Amino acid sequence: MTHAVIKDVLSGQYQVGDTVTVKGWIRTKRDSKAGISFLAVHDGSCFDAVQAVAPAELNNYENEIKRLTTACSVIVTGTIAKSEGQGQAFEIQASSVEVVGWVENPDTYPMAPKRHSMEYLREQAHLRARTNMVGAITRVRHCLAQAIHRFFHERGFYWISTPIITGADAEGAGEMFRVSTLDLENLPRTDKGTIDYKQDFFGKETFLTVSGQLNVETYACALSKVYTFGPTFRAENSNTTRHLAEFWMIEPEVAYAELKDVAQLAEDMLKFVFKAVLAERADDMAFFAERVDENAISRLQSMIDSTFVRMDYTEAVEILKNCGKKFEYPVEWGVDLQSEHERYLAEVHVGAPVILQNYPKDIKAFYMRMNEDGKTVAAMDILAPGIGEIIGGSQREERLEQLDARMDQMGLNKEDYSWYRDLRRYGTVPHAGFGLGFERLVSYVTGVGNVRDVIAFPRTPGNADF
Amino acid sequence: MTHAVIKDVLSGQYQVGDTVTVKGWIRTKRDSKAGISFLAVHDGSCFDAVQAVAPAELNNYENEIKRLTTACSVIVTGTIAKSEGQGQAFEIQASSVEVVGWVENPDTYPMAPKRHSMEYLREQAHLRARTNMVGAITRVRHCLAQAIHRFFHERGFYWISTPIITGADAEGAGEMFRVSTLDLENLPRTDKGTIDYKQDFFGKETFLTVSGQLNVETYACALSKVYTFGPTFRAENSNTTRHLAEFWMIEPEVAYAELKDVAQLAEDMLKFVFKAVLAERADDMAFFAERVDENAISRLQSMIDSTFVRMDYTEAVEILKNCGKKFEYPVEWGVDLQSEHERYLAEVHVGAPVILQNYPKDIKAFYMRMNEDGKTVAAMDILAPGIGEIIGGSQREERLEQLDARMDQMGLNKEDYSWYRDLRRYGTVPHAGFGLGFERLVSYVTGVGNVRDVIAFPRTPGNADF
Repeated sequence: MTHAVIKDVLSGQYQVGDTVTVKGWIRTKRDSKAGISFLAVHDGSCFDAVQAVAPAELNNYENEIKRLTTACSVIVTGTIAKSEGQGQAFEIQASSVEVVGWVENPDTYPMAPKRHSMEYLREQAHLRARTNMVGAITRVRHCLAQAIHRFFHERGFYWISTPIITGADAEGAGEMFRVSTLDLENLPRTDKGTIDYKQDFFGKETFLTVSGQLNVETYACALSKVYTFGPTFRAENSNTTRHLAEFWMIEPEVAYAELKDVAQLAEDMLKFVFKAVLAERADDMAFFAERVDENAISRLQSMIDSTFVRMDYTEAVEILKNCGKKFEYPVEWGVDLQSEHERYLAEVHVGAPVILQNYPKDIKAFYMRMNEDGKTVAAMDILAPGIGEIIGGSQREERLEQLDARMDQMGLNKEDYSWYRDLRRYGTVPHAGFGLGFERLVSYVTGVGNVRDVIAFPRTPGNADF
Repeated sequence: MTHAVIKDVLSGQYQVGDTVTVKGWIRTKRDSKAGISFLAVHDGSCFDAVQAVAPAELNNYENEIKRLTTACSVIVTGTIAKSEGQGQAFEIQASSVEVVGWVENPDTYPMAPKRHSMEYLREQAHLRARTNMVGAITRVRHCLAQAIHRFFHERGFYWISTPIITGADAEGAGEMFRVSTLDLENLPRTDKGTIDYKQDFFGKETFLTVSGQLNVETYACALSKVYTFGPTFRAENSNTTRHLAEFWMIEPEVAYAELKDVAQLAEDMLKFVFKAVLAERADDMAFFAERVDENAISRLQSMIDSTFVRMDYTEAVEILKNCGKKFEYPVEWGVDLQSEHERYLAEVHVGAPVILQNYPKDIKAFYMRMNEDGKTVAAMDILAPGIGEIIGGSQREERLEQLDARMDQMGLNKEDYSWYRDLRRYGTVPHAGFGLGFERLVSYVTGVGNVRDVIAFPRTPGNADF
């Protein structure tokens, strides 16, 4: 018997009259007075369940089929038939319904078929993939990840797995998790009484990476076009809808590229992955539009159709100062823009995504390339209507003298970055890149507002369950 | 002027007479007595460099072009010509050679164009991607990663990012790295004087994951076909050519699958990715065959052409006991097989990959499904000629009673695994999966024998540089 994937049954890959077997779980069951049970069976291959019609003649109808509840696992064999009901073209006329696994105490089953709060689902992270909501998020997340890999692969980029455990603080922000095998009850000490990290696993202090950028630059300066796609970490005590302690990031890096080149790359990438989601996950996107955000689909389509507007930070500050709107945080040249400012620019002033460029050097990282004005650096943020910043990038300082000057100004120890400086000593080239927080992208695409709901097992302050 | 990728120039994407610009680095330079310089320029897009012919007429010939050394960055503009030399069809007749970046002290440049030891290259991990060897490894690694994602995507699997930071020890082996933000110089204490992990970032003890399997099972029991592809960690003091403290792993998990199904999936996957490498990276594979292992290509081809042989552990023990060969470690039913045994089976006895199945329960993990004999579990290892074990997998114990019995026997605390047990309480299904260590795969494919050389920045005991 063919084990048929439910997506294939519903999309007409089988003929009416074909005998198939589907294997999955009961989503809902309805018994008619005429002695027929309608089983909605799903297997996760697509949003919809297939309807299996089980007649009373089946020999386990009374003692098993009628007792089925949500989440029981079943193997259904039957023939494909045109569906009389609305919404689906095909259903299965069951000739056999085998119960594989029952649900213990259905009355207390945590994922009963009703609307659960997202907070409740987080507490049941091991079961929440069984819901319509988290199933749809998971499929869209997968689609986005595949599209990102495909986008870069088709353009000749190589995927680099930069290290997770590191001795370096790429952002200099200090919000890092320590990684250690030292026995905390019996810490080794040096002669001077300090902790002897030479005895730790790696022979020194190590942490979880906050970014693969500095590492991946070494590969861009050899293979020209590279990208990372891996987990990054922030030990930041942020309890917001936009922060995770563990999140995935995509960081392309391109040799011989200037800021404008990676701005275009970012725009192309976003449009590419949005198109992929609309084409490949129409079922799940329809659900998000119905249940989460009525603009879920139109928002992506309008991003695809729009031209992203390039604007200098300095111009943006002028616009914000003169727009007549009162902001909670006042704007002056030199301040970091807040979410309220970013959203005003993208949503009200431009009405389309904005690529904001050339920020004051003092609010940006040491590795960003100094512009000729000596005051700004070649950095960019992409601001999207409805979410604010979604991508941050920059051209990197490829001139050793200027890089050293910035490191001195910011009090960084040049010896710690000797390998990074080597790239500027040996055949240096202009290069640029950006970072995209993957969970923020999934959140933006699905309309699901909290990043904790778009990663399987979210890690946040106080939460590392499962 | 078109910025041409060197791969496209060499593969004939441009016409003879077209003017192009290539941007890259000098691999080697040769000056003829006739006043012409031959520059081998590479950009990482493929194995080969393109030859650019620079005549003495160029205005910076004497003061710049003649001073070029390996690794200088250059932008070369010129016309495509048929190459007179051997090996390449096309070259560039340069009309302009712009030097972008010089090499400081060429005499001491660490990546001088000669053969370096792999050990030396590891010490220069930030520059080694510039060598033929590590460039080729990186492209093959990328090709394998893409092929793996493509393989699973085409078969309806969803990629799941299982957590990196975890409170659970999936393998029960205890060789984990601690993740913490506690101040080691000032550890918080409970009333009883023990360390108060409630005050740590996640409110409890946390570690780096050793496997995503238990987590991804929760998604297989909702979406049917899923896989992980992410970093995993072992705080094991192993200084071998096959061990890393940080490595990437692929772990598919399939609902309604038995051991034989995932054995077939693994065989199909290996053949799929080997075919992809031979088709897409013929240039790099030719280099490995020439410089690393003359069988690099034929070994993959023979894996593709062979049928993997299925064999029970019990049968394998009989073969090993009766084969007449003296092993360092004697074989008896119940022992874990050593590399010498695995390689004898695959290389001598069968002469093809072997899928060894149904191992004694006492040498396998608690989650593997008990066979009807009560002595063996539905586990498999795939043994490949030339390397030994390359994949390990199993059918999971989906019956709660049997799972609990195993956990009791092995002294595991069932409360720690309550969420894992829930999968068996609510609509349990047979399911199975396997794990593939990505660096071991790259090592096998390239013939590069040490896994430290096939990951960008290897982490091993005492080493977390860069």
